[in-house]
Amino acid sequence: MPRIGIIGAGVAGLHLGLLLRQHDVPVTLYTDRSPHDLATSRLQATVAHHAPTLQREKDLGVHFWPDAEYGYTCHHHYVGGEQPLRFRGDFTRPSSAVDQRLYLPALAEAYENQGGDLRVGRVEAGDLTTLADRHELLVVAAGRSAFSPLFASRDAYSPFREPQRRLCAGLYHGIRPADPKGVTLSIAPGHGELIEIPLFSRDGHVSALLFESVPGSGQDVLNDLSYEEDPALFLRAVRDQLAARHPDVFERIVPGEFDLTGPLDLVQGALTPTVREDFARLPNGRYALAVGDAHTVVDPIVGQGANAASHSAWVTGEEIGADLALDELFCRRVAQRRADVVLGAAQWSNFMVQPPAAHLLELLVAMSGCQSAADAFTDNFGHPDRQWRIVATAERTHAFLERHGAALPPAAP
Amino acid sequence: MPRIGIIGAGVAGLHLGLLLRQHDVPVTLYTDRSPHDLATSRLQATVAHHAPTLQREKDLGVHFWPDAEYGYTCHHHYVGGEQPLRFRGDFTRPSSAVDQRLYLPALAEAYENQGGDLRVGRVEAGDLTTLADRHELLVVAAGRSAFSPLFASRDAYSPFREPQRRLCAGLYHGIRPADPKGVTLSIAPGHGELIEIPLFSRDGHVSALLFESVPGSGQDVLNDLSYEEDPALFLRAVRDQLAARHPDVFERIVPGEFDLTGPLDLVQGALTPTVREDFARLPNGRYALAVGDAHTVVDPIVGQGANAASHSAWVTGEEIGADLALDELFCRRVAQRRADVVLGAAQWSNFMVQPPAAHLLELLVAMSGCQSAADAFTDNFGHPDRQWRIVATAERTHAFLERHGAALPPAAP
Repeated sequence: MPRIGIIGAGVAGLHLGLLLRQHDVPVTLYTDRSPHDLATSRLQATVAHHAPTLQREKDLGVHFWPDAEYGYTCHHHYVGGEQPLRFRGDFTRPSSAVDQRLYLPALAEAYENQGGDLRVGRVEAGDLTTLADRHELLVVAAGRSAFSPLFASRDAYSPFREPQRRLCAGLYHGIRPADPKGVTLSIAPGHGELIEIPLFSRDGHVSALLFESVPGSGQDVLNDLSYEEDPALFLRAVRDQLAARHPDVFERIVPGEFDLTGPLDLVQGALTPTVREDFARLPNGRYALAVGDAHTVVDPIVGQGANAASHSAWVTGEEIGADLALDELFCRRVAQRRADVVLGAAQWSNFMVQPPAAHLLELLVAMSGCQSAADAFTDNFGHPDRQWRIVATAERTHAFLERHGAALPPAAP
Repeated sequence: MPRIGIIGAGVAGLHLGLLLRQHDVPVTLYTDRSPHDLATSRLQATVAHHAPTLQREKDLGVHFWPDAEYGYTCHHHYVGGEQPLRFRGDFTRPSSAVDQRLYLPALAEAYENQGGDLRVGRVEAGDLTTLADRHELLVVAAGRSAFSPLFASRDAYSPFREPQRRLCAGLYHGIRPADPKGVTLSIAPGHGELIEIPLFSRDGHVSALLFESVPGSGQDVLNDLSYEEDPALFLRAVRDQLAARHPDVFERIVPGEFDLTGPLDLVQGALTPTVREDFARLPNGRYALAVGDAHTVVDPIVGQGANAASHSAWVTGEEIGADLALDELFCRRVAQRRADVVLGAAQWSNFMVQPPAAHLLELLVAMSGCQSAADAFTDNFGHPDRQWRIVATAERTHAFLERHGAALPPAAP
């Protein structure tokens, strides 16, 4: 039975670890932070899980947050401009968002209960030889591990040299939920986006606000303020940005209750989207496979990171169970099977952080008048491969709208 | 609705044409030979269709040769040497072999009955611009068409510069069927192979003998004789080769009845296995996609050509129906979806025409003592991707045998 080593205990590492334990495969998970430390740490991300990911959680026996209470069913869209657009898209099956500081420790406990070995401690570059000899396959599932340099960046899928958005993500009290309960995707042309997510944290049902700000834009002011230095000033700035650019969220603020849920419930930063090689041959002839952030880092603008990571972990686990060896052919097979979803997520996310293509604007306008197109677009947050096939070119977007009977934009002369 | 042009009316072209007509897609099939001319032409190949291909024929409504009468259920193996090996592998579902000169005209008729446009005439290189403008996608499904040069050979999958076997395939009376009815795969080390197939032709149930001869070997003498010049000499040579190297077929010869079924029922030749690029961009910005022999030419040693062609056609047809455009992204998607089966077929076939690897011999020995391994190997003639994953390396072969509880060869020192 192969002994699998996994570096990183995020969504990818834990989903893979749990799947392997279901098949009685011996597995060791290396993480630099204990579940307890993670539970009490600063917010790292605001993550929604879509239906395919929730299905995997059900299959793994770790769907601890029933959809009826924790799920949501739609996306509310707002696109600012002279004539603002508003429309809603419904999911076929619910999505949900749970604070990773609750989610990951609960999954780590389930993993250990199922016989998984969890080792807490920093993995250094110098440990590679030891770990490569100890395991028949190393799965690198952490974006910032000492082993990340094993996987070279792939230029064809990594068009940016620097972040395209600056991020300010926090958990807030005092925002009434949207009705029906759902995520609000609010676009402020020239400034960026706001993604408001109904999220469950240790404070209960709260609102996550993820500001995706174009560097140097008015909205980007949020990244130059420190909540800890001056909470009132920071909160006023958030309110001001909501009032100026995201009215559909602003109007749900409850006066006197609006506040961050805690000083650790805020993260400000930025990342450069990058797709890396799928695998690397180790000095001893064995292989290391990249999954999750070690393989693709996407801007969170359309919430694809965790879902793609879970998909990638699932494919990896299925192939470990099915294949006869953990060699280059195995790695190529995993790469081939996950490519559509994982690269689709990366390409769609990259498309969304670029200056908006004319056909993206056409799509938004058309969806505001065509419910079935809006629903399909929304459901595709769980199917980034399908979404990318819709937005990749103007011709594809037009064909998609035509299939849904949506009003097409006037043809170019 | 996209207008598809298909060059070539072999298995790939017809399966694709029929699938597209099922979805009411307008399609034009170009062939240089009318179905009537094909029906009365020289034998081109001796082709078995395995269960996945037969299933596609059922789905297309063109399964005109019911398994109960035309099918067979097993492979009989003979491996010559000091201690000859004999073993049988059973299929999960039957395979069958029908003379393409019956099969293809019947499918062409069904295609036309379902509204498909069939145009008979030679397509020349100079027709490319016209055809590219007439169709939204060109599917090149003929190995020797004027458009073949559009698709460059891929070195990574094309290890040979010349044929590895010389082929002598004919249809014969006077060989009693094997019991149970099945194909006999007979290996004569140093000389090549004989594949005997129970095949249905216009003469009824006959035996196809496909000699796969190592160039310059004793068995290769068959390729230097002409049946038409001296039928008796040719037949005596065939008998002599069977007697000397393929006793399990020789013993079933019925004295006085053994003969070719007709002077056109023999083909002698050779081919160089080649894998070509999946698609090409045409001068007008549209795309040409290679399927079947235009994409991969495999030695028929394990009978994979027609089955891979049918699979490739099926994936192409499904994607034409599902996708939003017939652009590069579409072509890449087809390439990705068919890669495991089509490249698996090519790699496994290439492996089999090379000097036998030690682990292939180990596999044959082990299967002769392990029915479940022999059955799995046999069933994988319909799943070349799985077969390649078994034979690609010694480690994989050993893991396969271990899973089947087969006696493993002694470990290397």
